[in-house]
Amino acid sequence: MPVNLSAPNPDELFAVGGVRLGVARAGIRTADRKDLLVISLAEGSEVVGVFTQNRFCAAPVILAKSHLAQMPVRAMVVNTGCANAGTGEEGKARATRVCREVGLLLDCDVRAVLPYSTGVIMEDLPDDRIVEALPACVNALSEHGWLDAAEAIMTTDTVPKAVSRQLTVGGSAVTVTGIAKGSGMIRPNMATMLAFIATDAPVSKKMLQRMLEHATQRSFNCVTVDGDTSTNDSVMLIATGSTPCPEICADTSDGYGLLQEAIADVCIELAQMLVRDGEGATKFITVRVEDGRDEDECRAIAYSIGHSPLVKTAFYASDPNLGRILAAIGYSGVDDLDVSALDVYLGNVLVASGGGRAPGYKEEDAQRIMNEDEITVCVRLNRGVASATVWTCDLSHQYVSINADYRS
Amino acid sequence: MPVNLSAPNPDELFAVGGVRLGVARAGIRTADRKDLLVISLAEGSEVVGVFTQNRFCAAPVILAKSHLAQMPVRAMVVNTGCANAGTGEEGKARATRVCREVGLLLDCDVRAVLPYSTGVIMEDLPDDRIVEALPACVNALSEHGWLDAAEAIMTTDTVPKAVSRQLTVGGSAVTVTGIAKGSGMIRPNMATMLAFIATDAPVSKKMLQRMLEHATQRSFNCVTVDGDTSTNDSVMLIATGSTPCPEICADTSDGYGLLQEAIADVCIELAQMLVRDGEGATKFITVRVEDGRDEDECRAIAYSIGHSPLVKTAFYASDPNLGRILAAIGYSGVDDLDVSALDVYLGNVLVASGGGRAPGYKEEDAQRIMNEDEITVCVRLNRGVASATVWTCDLSHQYVSINADYRS
Repeated sequence: MPVNLSAPNPDELFAVGGVRLGVARAGIRTADRKDLLVISLAEGSEVVGVFTQNRFCAAPVILAKSHLAQMPVRAMVVNTGCANAGTGEEGKARATRVCREVGLLLDCDVRAVLPYSTGVIMEDLPDDRIVEALPACVNALSEHGWLDAAEAIMTTDTVPKAVSRQLTVGGSAVTVTGIAKGSGMIRPNMATMLAFIATDAPVSKKMLQRMLEHATQRSFNCVTVDGDTSTNDSVMLIATGSTPCPEICADTSDGYGLLQEAIADVCIELAQMLVRDGEGATKFITVRVEDGRDEDECRAIAYSIGHSPLVKTAFYASDPNLGRILAAIGYSGVDDLDVSALDVYLGNVLVASGGGRAPGYKEEDAQRIMNEDEITVCVRLNRGVASATVWTCDLSHQYVSINADYRS
Repeated sequence: MPVNLSAPNPDELFAVGGVRLGVARAGIRTADRKDLLVISLAEGSEVVGVFTQNRFCAAPVILAKSHLAQMPVRAMVVNTGCANAGTGEEGKARATRVCREVGLLLDCDVRAVLPYSTGVIMEDLPDDRIVEALPACVNALSEHGWLDAAEAIMTTDTVPKAVSRQLTVGGSAVTVTGIAKGSGMIRPNMATMLAFIATDAPVSKKMLQRMLEHATQRSFNCVTVDGDTSTNDSVMLIATGSTPCPEICADTSDGYGLLQEAIADVCIELAQMLVRDGEGATKFITVRVEDGRDEDECRAIAYSIGHSPLVKTAFYASDPNLGRILAAIGYSGVDDLDVSALDVYLGNVLVASGGGRAPGYKEEDAQRIMNEDEITVCVRLNRGVASATVWTCDLSHQYVSINADYRS
C-alpha cells in the first residue's frame, strides 16, 4: 500500500504544447495492459537527459545517449515488461529496430528517436510484438495522454505518478508536467528509474541541462528504496518552446529562477512518489543530516541510515529501537566523526546526545512518533553548515513477497 | 532455520589448557537463560584482538581496547541482552564496575579484565544484576565450559557456534578452540560480532596478532548477512602456552604455518556458521569473484552482489532472475569495468558472457542450481589474477519478522 499517495487527478495534469503521448497494449509481458508508450515532440524541442551510472547499463540507455548526441530528438519510445539490459549486441539491434519503426511512422530519422525499457533484466526484447503495436500508439497520440503514459510505464508500481506545475514567465503561462515510474531497484545515482518531464517554455539546451542537474540533485538522487541502482535509470527533460515567452538562454534570463524551481518541484514530488510507492512501503521516512562539514559526509550518513535493513525493519514494526540508527551513523564511513558531539532527533524528540541516550529521553515520546506513517529522522553533526536529505521507506514482509514473486 | 548447521558435538570440542569458562543466568533481558560468561586465563597467556570500526563503538569495546594496551589479560566477561553501546560515559562506568568485580573475584587488577556486551543498543547495562551473578560464573569455571559459553553469548542465534582443531607442533599436541555469536547486524569490518578463539600453543604476541589478522581477513571479513556493521564486533585470540612445544616467536618457527592455518580454519568455519544461522536464512551463498585486477575490485563486486536485497530475495524464491546479479555487478562502483569481458556462473552453469545472456544458457539449468540450499555464484573478470570470496545468505520474510519483533 503506498504511503499517502493516490492516483493523480487528470484535471490537475496540464498539457504541454508540443508534447503528444500515445499508449498501446503490446502484450510484452502481460496480456491486456498498457505497456508501450510513444512520445512525439514538436520540431525545435530541446531535450536533455541524465542516465544510470550502472556499468551494466541497458541497450536502450546506450542507444538513447548515442542518439541524443547526434541530432535533435523528435520522439521517445518506452516499454515496460522487459528491461533489455544484459542483452549484449542483440539487445542494441532490437532496440534500434524499434526506433527505426517509430521513425518510419513519424517520418523522422532513426537517430531522432530515443528508446527506454523497464522490467526484467537479461531477457530478450520482444521487438516483434512491440513493432506490431506501434501504430496503435501513434494513432493515440494526444497532448492529453500524460496519465495514460504514466500508467503504461509502471512495473511493480501500484499508482501512476504524474505532477504538473504552472507559472508565468514574461506574461506567458508556462507549464511543467512530468511522469515517473519505479518502486524497486531504487537507489539512483545521477538519475532514477524512468522520468519524463516537459515544459512548453523555450529554454536553451545548456540552461535545460543545468536545470535538470539542479533538479535531480535535489530529487531523484535523494531517494532510496533498496539500495539497488538500476541498469535502466533515465530522467529526460524536454523544452518545446511552444509558449510565446522569451527564450531562457542564460541564468540571468527572465524566468530562469522560477522555471528552475518549478522543475525541481516536479522532480521532488515525483521522486517522493517513488518512495511512497516503494515496494512494500508502509511508512515514508525523511532522513535529514544537518550542520555537517560538507554535503558528502551528510549524504553518507543519511544513506547509511536510509539503507540499513535493521533501521527499516524497526520502522516497519513502529519499534523505537533507535540504537540501530546510532549503529548506522557509526558505520557510515565518515572516519573522523565525533559521536559524542552529535544529536539525533526522531520527529521533535531529542533521542541521543553526548554519545548516548539523551537526558530526559522517554521511550513513549519516540513511540508516539514511530506510530505515524510520515517520520523524520534528523541528525545534527554540530560541526559545519552543510546538510543533506534522503527520502526512504520501511522494509516490510511485503517487500520480500513482491521481490520473491516478481517474475512468477 | 539455519542452513546445514546443527549444535556442535560436545565430544568434538577440545579443552584448551589454561582457559576456563563459566556461565550463569543473570536475567539481563530474559529470565532463566544463560546470559553471562566469565573466561579466566592462566598467567602468561598472550591475548590479541580486532574490534569494530563503527564510530559508535560500544563502551565495552572502548574499555577492552584500553585495558588490553595496559597489562596482560587474566579474564574476560561477556553478557548478552544488552550491547552497552550508545550509552556514553555512564556505559563506561558500568562496564568498569563489572570488570572490577571480576577482578575482585579472580584476584587481579580491573585492567586485566576485558568486557564484551551484545544485545540491544542504547539501553543501560543492568550492572547490578550482572555483579550479582558473577560469583556463579566463577564457581562454574571449567576447561570444559566451551559449549556452555557458546550458548551464553547467543542473541538471535538459533544454534550455538563452536569449533575445534588439533594439530601437532614439535611432537606436542596443540589445540585451537573457538566460539562465536551473531546472526544479524552482520557486516564485519576488521572483525565480527563476538568470537573468542584460544590455543594452548605458546605464541608471541606479535605472531599471534599476525595470525589473527591473517585469519579475520579470510573469515569474519568475508561474511555479510544484512550489511549492518555492529557497534560491538570483537574477535579475540588467546594463546595460553600450556603445551610444552617450543614458543612460536617468528614466522619461521616450527609450526607457525600449521597453527596459522588451523586458526584460520577455525575462524572460517565460525564465520560461515554466522551466515548459516543468519537471521531468516534458508540458503547459504558463496560469491566468488576471480581473475580481477586487484583484491579490492573483487571484494567490491562480491559485496555488491552479497548485499543486494533484490539478489537475496531471488535466492529466497529459488528464482533464477539472474539479471539482478548483473545489475549488482554494474553498480559495484568499479568504474572502468568492462561488462562485455566478464563471465557469470551460477554453480557450474555459465549464465552470462559478452555483456548478456550466454549462448546456450537454459533457464532450467539455473533453476536446478537455484533449488539447492548451498549455491555458488562465480564472476570471472578476465583481466587479472586477484580474487575474493564473500559468504552470505538469502533475504526472507523471516528476516523481517525477526527484526520487526526483536525487542518485543
